[in-house]
Amino acid sequence: MARVVVDVMLKPEILDPQGQAVQRALPRLGFEGISDVRQGKRFELEVDGPVDEAALARIHELAESFLANTVIEDFTVKVEEVAEAAK
Amino acid sequence: MARVVVDVMLKPEILDPQGQAVQRALPRLGFEGISDVRQGKRFELEVDGPVDEAALARIHELAESFLANTVIEDFTVKVEEVAEAAK
Repeated sequence: MARVVVDVMLKPEILDPQGQAVQRALPRLGFEGISDVRQGKRFELEVDGPVDEAALARIHELAESFLANTVIEDFTVKVEEVAEAAK
Repeated sequence: MARVVVDVMLKPEILDPQGQAVQRALPRLGFEGISDVRQGKRFELEVDGPVDEAALARIHELAESFLANTVIEDFTVKVEEVAEAAK
């Protein structure tokens, strides 16, 4: 059993109103020195069995087709925790 | 200039309907072997100046007060990219 994390963020050229709202609120709230904020999604997938290349390729496909909208979003797939079974 | 990432996830004991919806849809879509999915938020903050302990403490406070609802959410703060100025 392992945890695979898929991070989905808007592409840099796409406007991010959520992130902008956070960024604009910060000085008002007393936090200076943050020049940009982008907000995205994080998916934590618990994978049964070993996370080998085939499994990662499958998760990549899954992320590309269902978790991210690749027209406007980029995603990254990372193995975060690998338990005994997997390498 | 450095990028600090704040990941905000629902606490493990809090039901995550978004994640469950994704998890339940996967077998239908042809992806087996994923036993759990949790969905959370990822904030990428571009910080001016060095990311020293004081800056990280400030970002921690910011995350705790504004980015996460600590009644139901956990968050982690990670420095992702450090450019020349910072250590």
